[in-house]
Amino acid sequence: MTETVTAALLIIGNEILSGRTHDKNLPFLGRRLNELGVRLAEARVIPDVRETIVDQVNELRARHTYVFTTGGIGPTHDDITAECIAHAVGRPLMEHPEARAILDRRYKPEDLTAARLRMARTPEGADLIENPVSGVPGFKIGNVYVMAGIPAVMQAMFESVAHELVGGRPLLTGTVVAELPEGVLAEPLGELQARYPDVEMGSYPFYGQGRFGASLVLRVADPARLELAMGELKDMVRRLGAEPREEAVEAEAEDTGTAGAAGHTGGTG
Amino acid sequence: MTETVTAALLIIGNEILSGRTHDKNLPFLGRRLNELGVRLAEARVIPDVRETIVDQVNELRARHTYVFTTGGIGPTHDDITAECIAHAVGRPLMEHPEARAILDRRYKPEDLTAARLRMARTPEGADLIENPVSGVPGFKIGNVYVMAGIPAVMQAMFESVAHELVGGRPLLTGTVVAELPEGVLAEPLGELQARYPDVEMGSYPFYGQGRFGASLVLRVADPARLELAMGELKDMVRRLGAEPREEAVEAEAEDTGTAGAAGHTGGTG
Repeated sequence: MTETVTAALLIIGNEILSGRTHDKNLPFLGRRLNELGVRLAEARVIPDVRETIVDQVNELRARHTYVFTTGGIGPTHDDITAECIAHAVGRPLMEHPEARAILDRRYKPEDLTAARLRMARTPEGADLIENPVSGVPGFKIGNVYVMAGIPAVMQAMFESVAHELVGGRPLLTGTVVAELPEGVLAEPLGELQARYPDVEMGSYPFYGQGRFGASLVLRVADPARLELAMGELKDMVRRLGAEPREEAVEAEAEDTGTAGAAGHTGGTG
Repeated sequence: MTETVTAALLIIGNEILSGRTHDKNLPFLGRRLNELGVRLAEARVIPDVRETIVDQVNELRARHTYVFTTGGIGPTHDDITAECIAHAVGRPLMEHPEARAILDRRYKPEDLTAARLRMARTPEGADLIENPVSGVPGFKIGNVYVMAGIPAVMQAMFESVAHELVGGRPLLTGTVVAELPEGVLAEPLGELQARYPDVEMGSYPFYGQGRFGASLVLRVADPARLELAMGELKDMVRRLGAEPREEAVEAEAEDTGTAGAAGHTGGTG
């Protein structure tokens, strides 16, 4: 693996854990980070609980080059992310002058309530993350990027800091869809993997219309190695009696898990 | 909080972290567990890496009443969940006689390859989790439930063990949608929360068609307390000049985060 720059995502919010709201930020961030040569190495979903947020931020920021958090930066009583990050990094929570100026421009003085002023608070020394969608900024302190939970806002915030992330070589992804059960694919795929230890090979089964198949995904930074391995993989699928359906090679494959029946790995053999 | 029975979900799979596949198991599990009086307290998404899986299983099973894992139990080389769980619980990985019998019934002898036989392996002493969708079972060892990643299969597996989970009182959920910015809602909502410390109050902003609003979600086990708090909450929204739109009170609210624009908490004030 040439990939060494890693990131973690901390998804903060009871509403994700209750199943009420479906997170959309993880797939976006995983894809975009990979394009920048950063590997999303883990993600955690945690409740709006002070001690939990502080502990997890500290664990993750020590372990990864970048940590991104989503959620909990609004004006309501359950928005406690900013104060938890301040506590985690050992800085006081202060009113950030630029953030205050943004709120001053956005709200009439009589609408700039104490609750809204909470959104101008960051740990001392933080830099703001611009929010072109709804104005109210996120912030960055050390290697921790604190963003909104609403996907449209989160994505805009991410794009405003993407240029400053320093990654390794992006992994290229090639996908071959095979309408064969994983149990048939498993042995030859394992042998192929053994001959290409530098290429990460994954098998992601799907199930739909009563049929099983698998997406075989190869990831490697070197385009020549990817081409070689893809050629062998397609030959393998043909030898097993199916027509390999190749998806475009790109810096990251588009989501193919949208069909409801499709999903991630496990137990369909 | 009357809720004390907690669970964790460990989502195993590179394809979730790369953004290629969208997890659908977390929202399902969060909702179903709550109906059974079990709170999903955290979820983690981790790659197909042996040491990571072992460490996280051990951390989570010590901390929660139940741990559920999804993914990595198929026949391919990247399906390493069973051996990792065995290592985590300190038991040898064995061929499970009932699992073997299931595979014997499912496959002709010439199709029962070494790769497929991998799916009969469980840690010694494990009980199987039935898979009515595609046959190949999951397993349970101690408080760890090991399930497939494909949502249809995972859901069927969960339902086959749901009767044995022992929960507390389920939290009831009431939701009021208010077409008001969170910055307007924040102060009176915080005051309401202060007067109902036993009721968990969350504010989940949404953004769509250029308008901001918030879903205000109350959760408590006692129906009388919920009714009282919901009444006050609706009065509050009316006083602020909007018509409260109440969603059905149920053991868990349906997902309302499907509109693309809707999402989880933060930064819209």
